[in-house]
Amino acid sequence: MSTQKLRVGIAGLGRMGKRHAINFHELTARANVVAASTPDESERAWGAENLPGVQIYSDYDEMLEKANLEAVVVASVTAVHAEQALKAIEKGYHVLCEKPLSIDIEVAQSVVTAYERSLQKTPTQKVMCGFSRRFDASYREAHKRIENGELGSPVVFRSQTADLLDTSGFFVDYAKTSGGIFVDCSIHDIDLMLWFLGENRKIKSLQAVGVTAVHPGLAASGDRDNAIATVEFEGGKIAALYCSRMMAAGQEDTTEVICERGSVRVNMQVRKNHVEIHDSLGARRELPQHYYERFREAFATEAFEFTACCLDNTPPPISLQSSVQAVAIGQALQRSLVSGEKIFF
Amino acid sequence: MSTQKLRVGIAGLGRMGKRHAINFHELTARANVVAASTPDESERAWGAENLPGVQIYSDYDEMLEKANLEAVVVASVTAVHAEQALKAIEKGYHVLCEKPLSIDIEVAQSVVTAYERSLQKTPTQKVMCGFSRRFDASYREAHKRIENGELGSPVVFRSQTADLLDTSGFFVDYAKTSGGIFVDCSIHDIDLMLWFLGENRKIKSLQAVGVTAVHPGLAASGDRDNAIATVEFEGGKIAALYCSRMMAAGQEDTTEVICERGSVRVNMQVRKNHVEIHDSLGARRELPQHYYERFREAFATEAFEFTACCLDNTPPPISLQSSVQAVAIGQALQRSLVSGEKIFF
Amino acid sequence: MSTQKLRVGIAGLGRMGKRHAINFHELTARANVVAASTPDESERAWGAENLPGVQIYSDYDEMLEKANLEAVVVASVTAVHAEQALKAIEKGYHVLCEKPLSIDIEVAQSVVTAYERSLQKTPTQKVMCGFSRRFDASYREAHKRIENGELGSPVVFRSQTADLLDTSGFFVDYAKTSGGIFVDCSIHDIDLMLWFLGENRKIKSLQAVGVTAVHPGLAASGDRDNAIATVEFEGGKIAALYCSRMMAAGQEDTTEVICERGSVRVNMQVRKNHVEIHDSLGARRELPQHYYERFREAFATEAFEFTACCLDNTPPPISLQSSVQAVAIGQALQRSLVSGEKIFF
Amino acid sequence: MSTQKLRVGIAGLGRMGKRHAINFHELTARANVVAASTPDESERAWGAENLPGVQIYSDYDEMLEKANLEAVVVASVTAVHAEQALKAIEKGYHVLCEKPLSIDIEVAQSVVTAYERSLQKTPTQKVMCGFSRRFDASYREAHKRIENGELGSPVVFRSQTADLLDTSGFFVDYAKTSGGIFVDCSIHDIDLMLWFLGENRKIKSLQAVGVTAVHPGLAASGDRDNAIATVEFEGGKIAALYCSRMMAAGQEDTTEVICERGSVRVNMQVRKNHVEIHDSLGARRELPQHYYERFREAFATEAFEFTACCLDNTPPPISLQSSVQAVAIGQALQRSLVSGEKIFF
Repeated sequence: MSTQKLRVGIAGLGRMGKRHAINFHELTARANVVAASTPDESERAWGAENLPGVQIYSDYDEMLEKANLEAVVVASVTAVHAEQALKAIEKGYHVLCEKPLSIDIEVAQSVVTAYERSLQKTPTQKVMCGFSRRFDASYREAHKRIENGELGSPVVFRSQTADLLDTSGFFVDYAKTSGGIFVDCSIHDIDLMLWFLGENRKIKSLQAVGVTAVHPGLAASGDRDNAIATVEFEGGKIAALYCSRMMAAGQEDTTEVICERGSVRVNMQVRKNHVEIHDSLGARRELPQHYYERFREAFATEAFEFTACCLDNTPPPISLQSSVQAVAIGQALQRSLVSGEKIFF
Repeated sequence: MSTQKLRVGIAGLGRMGKRHAINFHELTARANVVAASTPDESERAWGAENLPGVQIYSDYDEMLEKANLEAVVVASVTAVHAEQALKAIEKGYHVLCEKPLSIDIEVAQSVVTAYERSLQKTPTQKVMCGFSRRFDASYREAHKRIENGELGSPVVFRSQTADLLDTSGFFVDYAKTSGGIFVDCSIHDIDLMLWFLGENRKIKSLQAVGVTAVHPGLAASGDRDNAIATVEFEGGKIAALYCSRMMAAGQEDTTEVICERGSVRVNMQVRKNHVEIHDSLGARRELPQHYYERFREAFATEAFEFTACCLDNTPPPISLQSSVQAVAIGQALQRSLVSGEKIFF
Repeated sequence: MSTQKLRVGIAGLGRMGKRHAINFHELTARANVVAASTPDESERAWGAENLPGVQIYSDYDEMLEKANLEAVVVASVTAVHAEQALKAIEKGYHVLCEKPLSIDIEVAQSVVTAYERSLQKTPTQKVMCGFSRRFDASYREAHKRIENGELGSPVVFRSQTADLLDTSGFFVDYAKTSGGIFVDCSIHDIDLMLWFLGENRKIKSLQAVGVTAVHPGLAASGDRDNAIATVEFEGGKIAALYCSRMMAAGQEDTTEVICERGSVRVNMQVRKNHVEIHDSLGARRELPQHYYERFREAFATEAFEFTACCLDNTPPPISLQSSVQAVAIGQALQRSLVSGEKIFF
Repeated sequence: MSTQKLRVGIAGLGRMGKRHAINFHELTARANVVAASTPDESERAWGAENLPGVQIYSDYDEMLEKANLEAVVVASVTAVHAEQALKAIEKGYHVLCEKPLSIDIEVAQSVVTAYERSLQKTPTQKVMCGFSRRFDASYREAHKRIENGELGSPVVFRSQTADLLDTSGFFVDYAKTSGGIFVDCSIHDIDLMLWFLGENRKIKSLQAVGVTAVHPGLAASGDRDNAIATVEFEGGKIAALYCSRMMAAGQEDTTEVICERGSVRVNMQVRKNHVEIHDSLGARRELPQHYYERFREAFATEAFEFTACCLDNTPPPISLQSSVQAVAIGQALQRSLVSGEKIFF
């Protein structure tokens, strides 16, 4: 085991960038954040205060040029994910890129191609997309049980990402560049679907319907606030997806994998913690208010394992190609959602 | 309140007929079962032993002719539901008919027409299809909360009927006449969908996909053992359905109605009773093994309320037309399941 | 199986009397309520309206004299339970007596003695105290699992009866004659304790402490609104009891039987029905508001099984002696609660 | 906020010492473990491998002498807790001492006295006992809700520490020096009891009973494997405790605080993670197998907050005197358990 620490640079110090910076800097013993870059002045101020000893750049290229890095975490806005990842790959750096690589499939695929080419020169280089649920202890136990075969082959996959209702209008703006609810919300369910049903499994058909119930402004961007989909795979497997931006109680991310001789459920009884209140309203519990409250530990594990695979030259926990495939499926669902057509492959 | 008891005849003493007979005879104080008919000798023997004082006929027509009836419960095989209901309607008797009226929509609709005609002569006559979940206390509380409007308008309806895996081959035979998994299993979810989203709400599109994972013989009858569907309604409402004949632990019938400001869930934590076992396997509970274990009380309430509406001349709890509509939707889903096509209305 | 119906008289038409009358009359196919008696005029009016065909008496003795009875259900005020039971026993009638037989142990024991004597003349006579939880399906499954031995020998018994907070002052009045919280509330837990740990098991010591938190007036009657107790048995078994009249959300009756190789829990996740609400307060369920909402079916089963044991001359489901023992333990706990002393046997 | 890192020495690298070492070294950004001491050779070998850059001593005194420390974490065997804490206090170091300070109350109190004296010289010195549950997010939310007063005043406190059955015989040996089940297991419940009901609240009486069901060898050390207790406080508050070393499914640590207008429950539905399995045995979840699986995050928070209070000179999160009081109560319960006597104060 290498005792050297991985020298990490963080691209972007927005909501996720801050979290990655803290996770790599404070909770990942084998990593040191040595630099961070962001064009945003208030983000740089946050970095100066909260990342002591870390060099803060206003320009990503300058960071790549000057900082003594081994790995880059791309946590900037989606629009520059691919470009920043490509530059880091060319430098031979390890890359952990926030999902999605790009909402343009050709661009996303070009990152995979660049990585494959780069591997010929630098076979120890690691590039991975951050699908955090794959690092969650519950999903991992679920996956292990399916792999064990104790429950028989998986047949039906059902999963949902349902966000807390946000009445601030944030989502309406956000929808303009997010790629749509299936690319933005369901991407994690799609990634899990590939993980549980097989990353190389071919899709026969898919189809989606949706509504704008509480954010009517979404329609103008071809988006919806609630949508449901079915996906049909070769080999006798089907999946049902649900995504929502209208949950009153909190974040409700649940998954069921129904197999021939049993099923595994993850998070079907959503709860924030171990507290239950009994009062005149009955017995109640609170829910996580957002995905990070649910998956905080998974992100720390992601940082830990990405660091380990870089230092120890072990395979990345997630294949980069499957991350592109997830976006491709999300986009096809979004097209079906808008057109109303069922899509056959 | 009438103190006279409703004189009831039971058509069919199979699994459901036996239950109706006992419920009306022993648990419905305002009803007397006075006659029962069945062509099956062993069923007649059961009646002779378990229904003391009840006249048992081998022929339905003879029972209608000779017994002094006010109401008929049609619980025979699906193929004769409509015919028997029609004959009882013509006699002016109240009718509680097991679902479905018929798997042929035109035949089902002819029962509605006959009832409407008969009402002109006998305006106090009651004809109702037995959708038992509408009598379940939990579904009723859920419906009341939606009606109250406390949670806002319902937007997404999700419901499943998932049966215990039966490896005896029963389902393969049964599928030949059942009308298919959406007509047989999901019919209750469809009925609830109409109840919760509006019985007159128009459908824009529907679509289903499915597989035969554990009962390959089903494919020959155009049926599946697991299927998922989406339904899109006018007015910004969508529904997702799941039906299965492959549950390892028991019957899992669950429903979620997701509204603008909250949601109501029914039976999301399925359990047979109040017992929990902790042992070396962890903490576990058992599940109902079949729908009657879950809905036994609902059937007793159904008998009670059907009797009350007949005696007190109050409106039947369920509209007959909506029961035909449920079958029509089930059949459309089954067609989509087999053809793979999305159906637009 | 006898096809004759058991002719039942109901003594008392208060809250429990009404329920027994309806259960025996409408839900117990093998029983007919033929008479009822109550000194209360409004209760008689209720009977006249709700028990058609049942002769209503104002005097218990007159009912015993004139009505053609086979069995009596004693559901009057506790103070006359024993006296009425004794008179019915002398007449040779079967008796189902509401708990407790008496809060005076000698009086209670005299009923057992009278029954034993009467049995010599009328060996088919059945006398039983109505400990309803023994008829609850969940407690029965729990008991069966303990009897099976699959979890090893029971070691620790924990049980609680916790009533909804009633701010009307009812309990303060009621406490004057109820025998105290351990005789009134915990009597069911004590009965279950005997059932699960052994009806003949000797007690080594017991002890209780309590407070008056919300009903200060209780102290004047030597009572408390919350109390906890420990009981130590011969043979290495212990029990912890909790009783309360201060639950904000509803009735919370729970039991745990912890054995050497596992445990059985009954009702640890208290809920009224299968509904869950998700809204801005989180996820919540309602609780039963009183014991009858929780144990309604158990009372119907009690009526059914008492009737069956009378008609079929099978052993009564509960031994009368154990019902006296339960009261004796309740009283000892109440003495410890007031005196503060631990009591050794 | 100080940007310097707290220089920490770890005394003892046994099970808990290893965990503290990792937590302070890897997960506490503001702390550096600079030294560790243990007389055990294999523990020193573990340290050499897993704590790179940390000086490992075989002698505690030598570490205190030579290492450049600011704080000491005492995680050695209970017998030397007090002695090692006293030495570190005399040096003016901050001390986080594993519970209990000592199972001899006078010795424990002498540590408090020494700390109070030392504070006069070094008013910024922090000494704290590691009651980890006070750092658990769920217990904290529960405590905040009680403090808020939204549920009224707490009346009944119920809590249990129930360990997984260990058939290796470990407990029988361990019992010889552990101080007994109430000092070893229930100490956390007692600490919580003081936290929730008031650290200065006077006890009126306490009493305990117990059995040796699965570890008969415990009796020789005056210990039990299952025990229950009641505690009565001044001011109308009572508590019920349960401790066990016989749980078949895992660690079941639960707490209920029942107040005048509602209650807060912590961990009543024990579960290891978010996974549920449905198979032919029913629906089941796994439980944590030991306290660290349940409280891992709490220990990390403890390290974080102890470090913060040392560096920022804020009050320690737990008062040292209350930690002595917890041991005193545990010992009184243990005496009652063995003698059978109720103890009045």
